[in-house]
Amino acid sequence: MSAKTPKESMTVMTEIVLPNDTNALHNLRGGKILHWMDIASAIAAGKHSNAVVVTASVDNVSFENPIKLGDVVVITAKVTRAFKTSMETHIEVWAENLPTETRYRCNEAFYTFVALDSNGKPKKSNELIPETEVEKKHYEGALRRRQLRLVLAGRMKPDDATELKSLFTDIKA
Amino acid sequence: MSAKTPKESMTVMTEIVLPNDTNALHNLRGGKILHWMDIASAIAAGKHSNAVVVTASVDNVSFENPIKLGDVVVITAKVTRAFKTSMETHIEVWAENLPTETRYRCNEAFYTFVALDSNGKPKKSNELIPETEVEKKHYEGALRRRQLRLVLAGRMKPDDATELKSLFTDIKA
Amino acid sequence: MSAKTPKESMTVMTEIVLPNDTNALHNLRGGKILHWMDIASAIAAGKHSNAVVVTASVDNVSFENPIKLGDVVVITAKVTRAFKTSMETHIEVWAENLPTETRYRCNEAFYTFVALDSNGKPKKSNELIPETEVEKKHYEGALRRRQLRLVLAGRMKPDDATELKSLFTDIKA
Amino acid sequence: MSAKTPKESMTVMTEIVLPNDTNALHNLRGGKILHWMDIASAIAAGKHSNAVVVTASVDNVSFENPIKLGDVVVITAKVTRAFKTSMETHIEVWAENLPTETRYRCNEAFYTFVALDSNGKPKKSNELIPETEVEKKHYEGALRRRQLRLVLAGRMKPDDATELKSLFTDIKA
Amino acid sequence: MSAKTPKESMTVMTEIVLPNDTNALHNLRGGKILHWMDIASAIAAGKHSNAVVVTASVDNVSFENPIKLGDVVVITAKVTRAFKTSMETHIEVWAENLPTETRYRCNEAFYTFVALDSNGKPKKSNELIPETEVEKKHYEGALRRRQLRLVLAGRMKPDDATELKSLFTDIKA
Amino acid sequence: MSAKTPKESMTVMTEIVLPNDTNALHNLRGGKILHWMDIASAIAAGKHSNAVVVTASVDNVSFENPIKLGDVVVITAKVTRAFKTSMETHIEVWAENLPTETRYRCNEAFYTFVALDSNGKPKKSNELIPETEVEKKHYEGALRRRQLRLVLAGRMKPDDATELKSLFTDIKA
Repeated sequence: MSAKTPKESMTVMTEIVLPNDTNALHNLRGGKILHWMDIASAIAAGKHSNAVVVTASVDNVSFENPIKLGDVVVITAKVTRAFKTSMETHIEVWAENLPTETRYRCNEAFYTFVALDSNGKPKKSNELIPETEVEKKHYEGALRRRQLRLVLAGRMKPDDATELKSLFTDIKA
Repeated sequence: MSAKTPKESMTVMTEIVLPNDTNALHNLRGGKILHWMDIASAIAAGKHSNAVVVTASVDNVSFENPIKLGDVVVITAKVTRAFKTSMETHIEVWAENLPTETRYRCNEAFYTFVALDSNGKPKKSNELIPETEVEKKHYEGALRRRQLRLVLAGRMKPDDATELKSLFTDIKA
Repeated sequence: MSAKTPKESMTVMTEIVLPNDTNALHNLRGGKILHWMDIASAIAAGKHSNAVVVTASVDNVSFENPIKLGDVVVITAKVTRAFKTSMETHIEVWAENLPTETRYRCNEAFYTFVALDSNGKPKKSNELIPETEVEKKHYEGALRRRQLRLVLAGRMKPDDATELKSLFTDIKA
Repeated sequence: MSAKTPKESMTVMTEIVLPNDTNALHNLRGGKILHWMDIASAIAAGKHSNAVVVTASVDNVSFENPIKLGDVVVITAKVTRAFKTSMETHIEVWAENLPTETRYRCNEAFYTFVALDSNGKPKKSNELIPETEVEKKHYEGALRRRQLRLVLAGRMKPDDATELKSLFTDIKA
Repeated sequence: MSAKTPKESMTVMTEIVLPNDTNALHNLRGGKILHWMDIASAIAAGKHSNAVVVTASVDNVSFENPIKLGDVVVITAKVTRAFKTSMETHIEVWAENLPTETRYRCNEAFYTFVALDSNGKPKKSNELIPETEVEKKHYEGALRRRQLRLVLAGRMKPDDATELKSLFTDIKA
Repeated sequence: MSAKTPKESMTVMTEIVLPNDTNALHNLRGGKILHWMDIASAIAAGKHSNAVVVTASVDNVSFENPIKLGDVVVITAKVTRAFKTSMETHIEVWAENLPTETRYRCNEAFYTFVALDSNGKPKKSNELIPETEVEKKHYEGALRRRQLRLVLAGRMKPDDATELKSLFTDIKA
């Protein structure tokens, strides 16, 4: 059991939008983006935990700009915080049209994973030590997002979600 | 412009879990499930709006049971409510191991779509008239979930999210 | 060993016609339809027999209307009759163009499957009890179609095909 | 408009059985074989007619031996006879396990295709001149098989199927 | 351990260029051609050695003519010479536009493979006896190409590459 | 027309080895690696030239270590030198087994591309200014490798390959 930095789990995927993944207006389907994000962040979680991982949850994702056929998609993922057996990852998706040199943001999201041992049982993961300002912000917010997931999944009573309550207060302020 | 019932957009997809979509422990990747859910619900939204649709957002998804290699996956999707140019859909995912006759639930989720006209501009969608008790409950909750999406995406001030506030109150109660 | 109704094996698959499965005129290849029909009916046969199944034969298929790129294809399959170790399934294929609300029939067919035990040996399948008028008609015709298959495959002498003979008589009448 | 020999449309496809195309017992799905056969015979029909072609029908297919994961599949197809706008093709499927030097037959079948012009309308195809004994036998049987297809599809009255009647007589003899 | 002729390993693959394998100008990606060539020549090497094989190297490949979407690609491969545990194969790629009856050459190449036993260890392969003039020329050149590969990979000192030296002399002459 | 550094075309692809891309011993097929390398380097060449590009040639590639099923593959590519209408790219392939934290090198290669304008005609590409020591070494070697390609493709007389001759001299020394 040791500690790792977010940089150590950093994963970069580059893909091209192909016809089979687009709809009739030549936009990349959202489901394909979610699929690629899952693979990129599962690799990041695998690098952090040195284990096989399974997706536990996906947070709310909003798609900002449609990605067009033939454009290049760049997905980056890294671990934001490690809990007992689960890890949260942050993923960013950008697209680029090479001939016109246009680069545009598509979306960001948080996926969580559970590390499994060779018998398929959850195993304790390495700790995460954030380094940059953004990493520290993600690390702190992870607790609050975790409580929101548990409440939405019906596995935590709202009253026990102390971190989440402060968010509510902030939102309402 | 006319009105449709949820039943009219009902879409059923049946898939088999293939090796290329599993991880080293032979569990179906979460990203593939999210991808299939997107296709099933995009068809449901297309049936409702008779238009090409693009995914606008995906709500928080928790995966309850890992789906195994070779199992049959059944995905059902229908529209829960239509807004001006967007529609919310509800999706349920069940899996089945045929030799052992085991049927288990994997997850449920809400995806939203925007209907586009042939120039790729958002177009007004048909209204939705819920019929069953569950459909009516989904219809009513849609407003609250929509406000949560807008707040999380930074496109609505918490103070304007009147429906959402009542949820906060419920949660805190 | 028990009995099941056709409804219990009912399988619905919904697919979208993607560019890679079409020819230069943007029609879905017949071979891809045959492939989807095989998966849908294998799942139906698997539900009926609770076993792994292998395709034994495909009856004559005529394609009525070309299916276009981007259209939604709906395939339904259910078991029509169970023999000692084989089962016959009936499959129907419809397509739908969502923006124009056009629904058109593509074809129907009968596929047969053999149920296998875990050693890959044929195993006795559950009986089938037809319920509706159509199911009863399919059940009765299954014997005749089975004899036609055996004769065409050179595994039954025409003279022993008593059910088939009556079909010949009908046709010639 | 000219005439071609079957040799000129001869098409050979070689494929490897991959995990995603097999069932739980590692047998290649029948539907995948039907799909490959469709592509091979469509290329043969395209070579003969120098046109885009669509699948019109598939005759009864019986699968003789299951094909195993990792085996090499060799599919050969050639045109057997050209009618006004349709063509019949004959396809043979063999498989081979390279390490054990085992070669086994899987099945044969007849597929028919319609040649289309650039507007998607049926176009007259080149004539076919059979050369070998087998090609001549396939050429002669084509008329009978065509009548069987039309009768089974409900597009020809049994009484008008003069070629087919003689088959019935042969079978019954 | 026995000897085989090149004809015995002859492998023919026929493929259609699909949208997902092309770039924005509808040309087949070079990488896909290299992939198909690898499969065709791996099957040829597998037929020769009756073993599982792994790709050891690919020689310089120049692409002569872009292959267009929808065109038919024919790849032929056969073994040119067997060394102790490795084999060299020669591959030719032609493409054909069926409607215009245009046939054009894309490229040729040499790939080498190592035969493995069931433990994944290199195993001695069958000898190769060339028959035709072209096969004999390929057989003789194989030694020279092998030395070039070893020198380029830094596994042979140029001074020991006696066959290669004569090539240098020829080139310089 | 402007100049760019290699860093500006730097492309990182991360992939997982899936069952369908492996052989019977669970090694990734060499052809799939060549395919991924082509996509990564085509994106790098596209970034440098802001144009659609086609693969012109692939230099000799030797595979150093077999890559295993489930391992993560990281491919990096950048442009090494721009000629009139073609560009050379350098690609490196590493693989990683996450559970055992083993990282191993698979191979490196040089691919060349031609930039095309919207009519599919070769267009002049941006200049390349190498920055690091390795980039400068690659830049200088590019001329020699280009002559070797032209000589091997039969498009340059050995006597005109002045840069290449010095390589021969070096090798023989």
